[in-house]
Amino acid sequence: MTTIQKQGAAAVEAARFLSTCGTEAKNKALAAIADALESRMDEVLAANALDMQAAKKSNMSPALQDRLSLTADRITGIAQSVREVAALPDPIGKVDSVVTRPNGLEIKRVKVPLGVIAIIFEARPNVTVDAAVLCLKSGNASILRSGKEAINSNTAFADIMREAITSVGFPASCIDLIRDTSHEGANELMCLTDYVDVLIPRGGAGLINTVVQNARVPVIKTGVGNCHVYVDSKADLEMGAKIIFNAKCSRPSVCNAAETLLVARDIAKDFLPLAKAELDKMNVELRGCPETQAILGSSVVPATEDDWSREYGDYILAVKLVKDVHEAIEHINRYGTMHSEAIVTADNEAAELFVNAVDAAAVYHNASTRFTDGGEFGLGAEIGISTQKMHARGPMGLEQLTSVKYVISGSGQVR
Amino acid sequence: MTTIQKQGAAAVEAARFLSTCGTEAKNKALAAIADALESRMDEVLAANALDMQAAKKSNMSPALQDRLSLTADRITGIAQSVREVAALPDPIGKVDSVVTRPNGLEIKRVKVPLGVIAIIFEARPNVTVDAAVLCLKSGNASILRSGKEAINSNTAFADIMREAITSVGFPASCIDLIRDTSHEGANELMCLTDYVDVLIPRGGAGLINTVVQNARVPVIKTGVGNCHVYVDSKADLEMGAKIIFNAKCSRPSVCNAAETLLVARDIAKDFLPLAKAELDKMNVELRGCPETQAILGSSVVPATEDDWSREYGDYILAVKLVKDVHEAIEHINRYGTMHSEAIVTADNEAAELFVNAVDAAAVYHNASTRFTDGGEFGLGAEIGISTQKMHARGPMGLEQLTSVKYVISGSGQVR
Repeated sequence: MTTIQKQGAAAVEAARFLSTCGTEAKNKALAAIADALESRMDEVLAANALDMQAAKKSNMSPALQDRLSLTADRITGIAQSVREVAALPDPIGKVDSVVTRPNGLEIKRVKVPLGVIAIIFEARPNVTVDAAVLCLKSGNASILRSGKEAINSNTAFADIMREAITSVGFPASCIDLIRDTSHEGANELMCLTDYVDVLIPRGGAGLINTVVQNARVPVIKTGVGNCHVYVDSKADLEMGAKIIFNAKCSRPSVCNAAETLLVARDIAKDFLPLAKAELDKMNVELRGCPETQAILGSSVVPATEDDWSREYGDYILAVKLVKDVHEAIEHINRYGTMHSEAIVTADNEAAELFVNAVDAAAVYHNASTRFTDGGEFGLGAEIGISTQKMHARGPMGLEQLTSVKYVISGSGQVR
Repeated sequence: MTTIQKQGAAAVEAARFLSTCGTEAKNKALAAIADALESRMDEVLAANALDMQAAKKSNMSPALQDRLSLTADRITGIAQSVREVAALPDPIGKVDSVVTRPNGLEIKRVKVPLGVIAIIFEARPNVTVDAAVLCLKSGNASILRSGKEAINSNTAFADIMREAITSVGFPASCIDLIRDTSHEGANELMCLTDYVDVLIPRGGAGLINTVVQNARVPVIKTGVGNCHVYVDSKADLEMGAKIIFNAKCSRPSVCNAAETLLVARDIAKDFLPLAKAELDKMNVELRGCPETQAILGSSVVPATEDDWSREYGDYILAVKLVKDVHEAIEHINRYGTMHSEAIVTADNEAAELFVNAVDAAAVYHNASTRFTDGGEFGLGAEIGISTQKMHARGPMGLEQLTSVKYVISGSGQVR
């Protein structure tokens, strides 16, 4: 057996332990993790300093360095979020349907954990803790594999969490980290069909595509977002400008940020200047169709076909005029990534058509796409945002980390 | 574009049509299918005769010939089952949760179709119709790919269904059949990530493994069943004998039939002869552990390690003595396929332990494993039995062919 296979087999054993574990015991383990993260903060900071040193040496971009960096405050925040997960309701054991059949069999459907969840992510150390504790609270063992840029920080986090849970009687393998950060290590984890029930990749389009092409275990795709805001001919134009500014600029790097603005041709002459005035505040680069250029002038970069598919993750926005809600729907279903899509309109019929016909995890009427988030949806926490339709769609909280089991009670029935 | 890519793209278009289609329209299409199957029965019978001719020429086994063969009665039965699917409640459009957030956003979670469902199956022509109509009723487009042995029958079924739905205004591509029965055709369908939302393979372990190894689209594994009956020391022995006889013999070829009998050592001397007397009625070959042989004598074939993992699909049963419920659970979790598992006992504590700790889609207390079936569970019809934990587990009815979409209504909210 390879090291990773051994980790897989141990995770299956740990998952069996967790599947019959009560809420109180799981919460005790989570409390032990939160306490240990605070009391052993110095170890994490020392490990993170090594990662930061290497990051500087390799000229990592300031934005990525910021995501990688840990401070005492950030670690306290992470420990606090562990306590918040402990306080969430436990989804496991709930009976979500029960029927008694004419033959007297009682058939109950009960929520159970998925089992072993693998998570492959990039260089964000906080994800290590977030993912591990959401899995543990929902009764799942986790196998984490992070980018090599954060390996020292993540090893420290993993060691601390593993020791904390063993101190309250849990197998260490309820949480595990792949310490081999090579591509081979990631590939082996993606193909561990004997041990892994679900794999959740968290990261950019490159990571997601690698996983879809290489994984043999079941995958939940997350996070790639080419999101649109469509401002309809019946829109409140001020509202439209406020919404596109927020959807583009409040945090351009995240997956629920807007990448394309679609505008109904009728109101474009009035609306585009309003929108531009807002977007200029953050110096947003506009890449527009010829009609947009004709209205807004030479500051608009000509958009190419490629722009309609881009997830810029930056202060860049593609802009296109469309005839009406039908053409907007067609454009979104053609170029979108089924993440978050918004219509701004006072016309309820157009809104209804849009939310029904647009094929996406979250469809908004008169609100910013930026709300697609576990916290904003009231799930308490999220492990990612699913952009596929199988198993889970949209923000995934504890409920989305469960499966079901049928429990059938009889008195000797045969068929 | 290849032929199969074109079929995929057309299915996506058809799925968009179906996703906004009301229940009444879908039921009208189903009624048209049922009527056409009856009125064009002669075409199906003629096509099936070609398949049967080829089957005889290639010395197909009588059991498989029986599965392949269609008669007027069978086609009437298939048409009738289409009408039963039409009568089932439509899962689409149901709001399964709604919250109003402190910021005034109303967040509804609505049931929507999965989109395009691909189904790869073996030489059972009735599956063509079953699968297509369950997908259509739940608003999904289907792309079917059957074994070449049934291609004439399935082509006739597909043509009749496609013409029936176009007669009531539906795009033909709501239902499509891959007419290329080569392995290359199947492989292309498994990798159609741009068009296929979910792939459901229906068939034996060989087919399922090929799909798991080769698919790039999301897969729901179905049907491989190495099911166990454990007769506990506190069991009603008559009930135990009746249940193992039913679980093994009522239909040995199906996935919910039992393959291994586990018996608590304490009661083995009393129970095994009782069980053997029942199983002898159907000349079941017993493959036992040394202790089983010692009790039942030389008619028992010595079991090898391999026998604990076999899905015989035949009148053969592996038999093993275990110490207690704990050892039974361990054996099942080691060798089982997470399908259906039963305990026979009057000890409620042992039963509770068993149903909680055994990791399977369906766990039975004092009943036969043979009940794991959409009809028996009251789902009305099933498209397969999922043995994975992601998305669906156990019998999959219409509800399991759905996804969700979040619909968010605001009044200009930004984040």
